[in-house]
Amino acid sequence: MNQTHTNELSETIKSKNPVSTIENPGFAITWLQRQLRELEIPVMIIIEGLEAAGKGKVINDLLMNLDPRGFSMYTILPEKGVEKRYPWLKRFWDLSPSAKKMTVLKGSWYRSLIIDSVHKKRDKKERSKFIEQIQTFENSLYAEGFLLCKIFLEVSHKKQRRRFKKIDSNPSSSWKINKKKWKEHKHYDRSMQAAHEVFDKCSSPYPWHVIPSDDMHAAINQSLNIIASLMNEASDGITNGNRLPGRQFISDNSTQDTSKSITSSSSYRLDQMDLSKSISREDYNNIIKSKQKKLRDLEFALYKKKISTVIVYEGWDAAGKGGNIKRVTRHLEPDGYEVIPIAAPDKEEKSHHYLWRFWKAMPRSGHIAIFDRSWYGRVLVERVEGFATDEQWNRAYAEINDMEQYLVKNGVLLFKFFLHISPDEQLRRFQERQENPKKRWKITEEDWRNREKREIYETAINQMLERTSTALTPWHVVASNSKHYARIHVIDTLIQKMSETLKI
Amino acid sequence: MNQTHTNELSETIKSKNPVSTIENPGFAITWLQRQLRELEIPVMIIIEGLEAAGKGKVINDLLMNLDPRGFSMYTILPEKGVEKRYPWLKRFWDLSPSAKKMTVLKGSWYRSLIIDSVHKKRDKKERSKFIEQIQTFENSLYAEGFLLCKIFLEVSHKKQRRRFKKIDSNPSSSWKINKKKWKEHKHYDRSMQAAHEVFDKCSSPYPWHVIPSDDMHAAINQSLNIIASLMNEASDGITNGNRLPGRQFISDNSTQDTSKSITSSSSYRLDQMDLSKSISREDYNNIIKSKQKKLRDLEFALYKKKISTVIVYEGWDAAGKGGNIKRVTRHLEPDGYEVIPIAAPDKEEKSHHYLWRFWKAMPRSGHIAIFDRSWYGRVLVERVEGFATDEQWNRAYAEINDMEQYLVKNGVLLFKFFLHISPDEQLRRFQERQENPKKRWKITEEDWRNREKREIYETAINQMLERTSTALTPWHVVASNSKHYARIHVIDTLIQKMSETLKI
Repeated sequence: MNQTHTNELSETIKSKNPVSTIENPGFAITWLQRQLRELEIPVMIIIEGLEAAGKGKVINDLLMNLDPRGFSMYTILPEKGVEKRYPWLKRFWDLSPSAKKMTVLKGSWYRSLIIDSVHKKRDKKERSKFIEQIQTFENSLYAEGFLLCKIFLEVSHKKQRRRFKKIDSNPSSSWKINKKKWKEHKHYDRSMQAAHEVFDKCSSPYPWHVIPSDDMHAAINQSLNIIASLMNEASDGITNGNRLPGRQFISDNSTQDTSKSITSSSSYRLDQMDLSKSISREDYNNIIKSKQKKLRDLEFALYKKKISTVIVYEGWDAAGKGGNIKRVTRHLEPDGYEVIPIAAPDKEEKSHHYLWRFWKAMPRSGHIAIFDRSWYGRVLVERVEGFATDEQWNRAYAEINDMEQYLVKNGVLLFKFFLHISPDEQLRRFQERQENPKKRWKITEEDWRNREKREIYETAINQMLERTSTALTPWHVVASNSKHYARIHVIDTLIQKMSETLKI
Repeated sequence: MNQTHTNELSETIKSKNPVSTIENPGFAITWLQRQLRELEIPVMIIIEGLEAAGKGKVINDLLMNLDPRGFSMYTILPEKGVEKRYPWLKRFWDLSPSAKKMTVLKGSWYRSLIIDSVHKKRDKKERSKFIEQIQTFENSLYAEGFLLCKIFLEVSHKKQRRRFKKIDSNPSSSWKINKKKWKEHKHYDRSMQAAHEVFDKCSSPYPWHVIPSDDMHAAINQSLNIIASLMNEASDGITNGNRLPGRQFISDNSTQDTSKSITSSSSYRLDQMDLSKSISREDYNNIIKSKQKKLRDLEFALYKKKISTVIVYEGWDAAGKGGNIKRVTRHLEPDGYEVIPIAAPDKEEKSHHYLWRFWKAMPRSGHIAIFDRSWYGRVLVERVEGFATDEQWNRAYAEINDMEQYLVKNGVLLFKFFLHISPDEQLRRFQERQENPKKRWKITEEDWRNREKREIYETAINQMLERTSTALTPWHVVASNSKHYARIHVIDTLIQKMSETLKI
């Protein structure tokens, strides 16, 4: 929906709202939840604070005023079990709400920096890396129009001690205060120092609201007030004094002239690639099986070392992505890999941040995820077809680079293959599919339409290759006029880099 | 879609299928996957067998022939981490596919009976309980028209040993054969004996297909053949010689005359209940808070003892379910409970077994799940409005009883409250909502329409109460003309039974 529509709608709803935000924040929240849902603004509320700061009490009061159909509440504990086997931000991406939902978190992605810092010291460099990754994450939410309320309940050292003793004296709750908690209490200053570093460095675009919570009654009231007024601002299209970015343009894009926007040039020239490389059927048959078995051995070795692998396939229609993937997986152990076919996003996926569905599919340690098409859809089909605005797909290069850097720096082995075929070869394959009853289902009207847009796709692909090939995350453009050659080439690339990584 | 339509569709698709099921089972599976998807028949394939029986190899060949968009593959390992904190069948309910999907499992719900029996002995009675629960589960899938293929790969003791040695001799896979696996090898006979008990007792409605797998080439071929022919039969509407039950009637129900089917009587008489019970506002205010805090203490104690609680709310529109739930949760720790509002199923939920969404929401040990409406929708709104066929809602009483018995026998504390109000009181509340701008959003046309159907709803409720109140799973019908009385009554009921369970 566009800007004007947004404001009109919000006026209509507000005029019906019978309660002032200030006088009765709880009831205002009830109203605002419906309003933001209508406006399709996703809301994330994090209630942070040290142990016994009163997070649960604030959340319970908040929950009393929310329609249970519209929110989910989660408690963020230290990573455990299978959570440890993913890049650490993944679980927060997974929890990010859709446009019609609210996520309430007790604790947050700051937990490891603030509370856990008592138990696990991190040096300055490591802390900086965490903070940088958090900034990237929050920027990404901001760019897509999320409302994020960040509340920190500040309990004094003395009051924390008193609350610990009270909890300890109740036989039904005394188990909650264990040695670990007392240690956190003892190192109160260290946690608070870490908290202040976070307030300093992570206050933009979403500021922190620090609320003293020795007096719980006042803290609850103040928290609800802040939440209500932030929700109110968001319903006016305002975040921290600025108009909400991103989201409000989403449904607006069918009107733009997409052909115009594809003009900027790229130094990358797909059309200058040598596509004649090939391999004889005999050679292919002689070597493929042993290479596939080698891949299986590497799959085991990567599993053993808990290294996870992400393989991205992009390429022209009929370039042979499916067949290539089948040859890669032919002798793998099926427990260890998953093929993730990416089509147009469904309703649920569309209502989330566009990266959400990819984060959800990221492999746990030791596993292999193979994406048959990927997040690059944002700068390819979504760009060309106008499903993303100019602002959105232009921004996507940096967002994608950020995500991939994050993955690689967190130990993921990332491969990106673009299977390239010539227009003539594509035509030949289309015609073959059309004529062969066993293959006819593979070809649709859309494939023919896409073919007519070869030129604008080529511009988009060239720019993608140029802007998202980095030293850590290079693209491999694979000459695929010969399917046999392309398969061997991909498998060889995988074997080489996997072996290097494993030092075998 | 109805029976006739189903067959027509399947003929159309079959006439296009260019490949014989027998000559080329792999390619036939590719076709049949699309066909069953079109027919909306959910497919579950389980590949069982002892270690090194070749499950992975069979699955990899199967996967090569499947469209990745249409299936998910999972490996069933012994329960670990958070999985242990749920009723054991929950994870299999969660994995049950929607009407347009296929689930392929390496291992299955039989694992604990067959392979794990080597490590953890179970007495005859316990095994019987497991087998019974599995039978109930499979019957439930069968009744809703699932295709379930059960394949057991039988490796000989000698061949298993040889495969172990081979795996052990490859440095990249040797870690796979650990002491535990050798112990399983040593007790091969015990596992196979357990397997044979399973073949005997769990072969209806879905039979086992036991396939010798010393020769992997033959085993793969035979497995794909069986899968192809079972899929083929299912596409003809046949399961094990019988017409597929259940599902084909789903879209058929708009034509039935629902008023007619609500005729059978029940000995339960909702209209004879005393609704005059009440409590003064003063008394209520005096006692509610201490009872709420008592509930919080019990929440902690149940958490500590890892007992999970399921609370079901049903009741007339405007009976006060929402307000009652808020009073129950008012002082609970928000980490410990979740309110699950049940509305009409969405598209995803509709395409699964109707119990699937409730299984998904079952609490892990130590947690409380509060259902605001529940699976009883099947025998209430779905029955009255004709969203379920006569056959379906009549069958539901037994299915619901089975599920609840299963939960209770697995240690879940289950409460079922029906909030009852008189027609006059309901009218008064509807009018109040209509007149109060703060409450107007709570009342819709549908509420007024439902009110006109009071009599048929009353019949359905009486039958529900009669047929699903058992000694282990009783209904509490709560006089709710006085909201205050109803809230105290519910909280008292919770406190009493929770305290009893905890023996405090």
